[in-house]
Amino acid sequence: MHSFDYLQEKLNRIFASVKIISEPKELYDPIAYTLSLSGKRIRPLLVLTGCDLYGGDLDKVINVAIGIELFHNFTLLHDDIMDQAPIRRGKDTVHKKWNANVAILSGDTMFALATEYISHLQATVLPEVLKVFTMTARQVCEGQQYDMNFESQENVFLPDYIRMIRLKTAVLIACSLKLGAIVAGANAEEKKKIYAFGENLGLAFQLQDDLLDTFGEENKFGKEIGGDIIAKKKTFLYVKALELANDMQREALLRYLSTLSMTPDAKIRRVKELYRILHIEEITKAEISGYFDKALQCLDQMDVEQNDKKELRGFANRLLIREY
Amino acid sequence: MHSFDYLQEKLNRIFASVKIISEPKELYDPIAYTLSLSGKRIRPLLVLTGCDLYGGDLDKVINVAIGIELFHNFTLLHDDIMDQAPIRRGKDTVHKKWNANVAILSGDTMFALATEYISHLQATVLPEVLKVFTMTARQVCEGQQYDMNFESQENVFLPDYIRMIRLKTAVLIACSLKLGAIVAGANAEEKKKIYAFGENLGLAFQLQDDLLDTFGEENKFGKEIGGDIIAKKKTFLYVKALELANDMQREALLRYLSTLSMTPDAKIRRVKELYRILHIEEITKAEISGYFDKALQCLDQMDVEQNDKKELRGFANRLLIREY
Repeated sequence: MHSFDYLQEKLNRIFASVKIISEPKELYDPIAYTLSLSGKRIRPLLVLTGCDLYGGDLDKVINVAIGIELFHNFTLLHDDIMDQAPIRRGKDTVHKKWNANVAILSGDTMFALATEYISHLQATVLPEVLKVFTMTARQVCEGQQYDMNFESQENVFLPDYIRMIRLKTAVLIACSLKLGAIVAGANAEEKKKIYAFGENLGLAFQLQDDLLDTFGEENKFGKEIGGDIIAKKKTFLYVKALELANDMQREALLRYLSTLSMTPDAKIRRVKELYRILHIEEITKAEISGYFDKALQCLDQMDVEQNDKKELRGFANRLLIREY
Repeated sequence: MHSFDYLQEKLNRIFASVKIISEPKELYDPIAYTLSLSGKRIRPLLVLTGCDLYGGDLDKVINVAIGIELFHNFTLLHDDIMDQAPIRRGKDTVHKKWNANVAILSGDTMFALATEYISHLQATVLPEVLKVFTMTARQVCEGQQYDMNFESQENVFLPDYIRMIRLKTAVLIACSLKLGAIVAGANAEEKKKIYAFGENLGLAFQLQDDLLDTFGEENKFGKEIGGDIIAKKKTFLYVKALELANDMQREALLRYLSTLSMTPDAKIRRVKELYRILHIEEITKAEISGYFDKALQCLDQMDVEQNDKKELRGFANRLLIREY
């Protein structure tokens, strides 16, 4: 396969040439704005990767890569309304810069555009690609719903938490790789393995996000540390801490999170102290390693060049340790 | 083709057997609720009709019919949030019964489900069906955006208004018929004609809706008369009236619509008086007839059985005159 630098470069050229329709501009300006914020474009990169690994023609998979990025950005747009998030990638979110109606409708349009891009795929692989894509789209919605449900649940158990991040984050990573492999004509076994690789990588990736939000270094993480604690988010760290806490610790954790009489800094400090006593950082790192190792096992079993495995392992490593 | 009664009956059986996934229930309950309110299911009926007219196998088009109904209901769900509409089909809207986040996310899920149903189509026709469907989905969003733009525009010109209802309403009617014809294997000419038939019928249908909102009989229309006037909606009637009004009439119309010192009943009465002076009811009826005649001309040119044309003409007639 080509190097990741080559694929990334190709992707940059692709997105630089994507022309978003211009009228009505109230609808398409927010879409162009969202795409211009770009982010890391990991998912379309994985689409190209899945195709390239199995010797597929990259030019045939471009529309799928664009479609996946549009879909991902659509989910962020709507999630930001639901979470009332004011900032995304350092800029105003669409519902903040325009309003909620604009964010709803331009999000819907991005979803339609995503599927429209995918529909341009060659007919031989379209049915399978579309089935995987639409099932994944539905699962991502389910994941977001479970995540919202957690807000009003005091007790969230670990298997429920893992299911949520699997649906909300991991399946789209897995789907991206698999769609590339489908277009390249990989066989059923290989498609299964690359999907499992992506799913485990996605789980590790999300758990790392949870970890960095509390234990990361602010200048590397790019967000304020402790945001999840202030927002009382049910992260892996929180769920695990409640599982391990004795009655007193449990009560303390719940009190810290819900009190109004502590400054945010004090709140974050207290919760982190408790997490340290319960070894949450180490446990989370071990969990991340567990999923990462599973991903690498899947990779080992894949029927692709040894050199390509090495390249992909390096990429996965950079993805996971980039913020430490 | 089969009779419309037969098709309607088939459709009822299809929808009675549609099983919506159940977990997470916060996501799927609103979808089941929306589908149970059912409405008239005109669009899926037109999918079956388009297929039946060209001798297609109805069982092959069922998933498309379900997909189109899911898509249509998704647009209603999101439109109701944007319009802050409390009631739909005599029941609480989803964002009212649950909340806006639920309505956003279960709407998104319906869109994903719609495409998932369509993806089950046989591979030979899937690419074409998907292209028409996704383009239409995008156009419907554009129509809704133009409609929202009108709210803050004082001057809306007739061609802009017609473009809006073409995108928001007519293209989905046209698309439904065309998708059925695609699955049945109709040729390019026929697909063009049935699309044009649907588009003109859709325009007539929407203009009639505008007319009935102001000049209909309440017990037949099923909604309160004058709702558009109270909501200051830029309907065909309003746009046409402003086009024909002299300066004094124009000023009066704008004053009636925006004043806070008139009761709703008085407002409706005054605006209707002005519309009568300007012959708006007659002009709108003539416009409806114009589009209806165009639709019938397309129908005449279609290469289908004379008896079927008669059946379809009867159906179109019932659709258009049902509320008078």
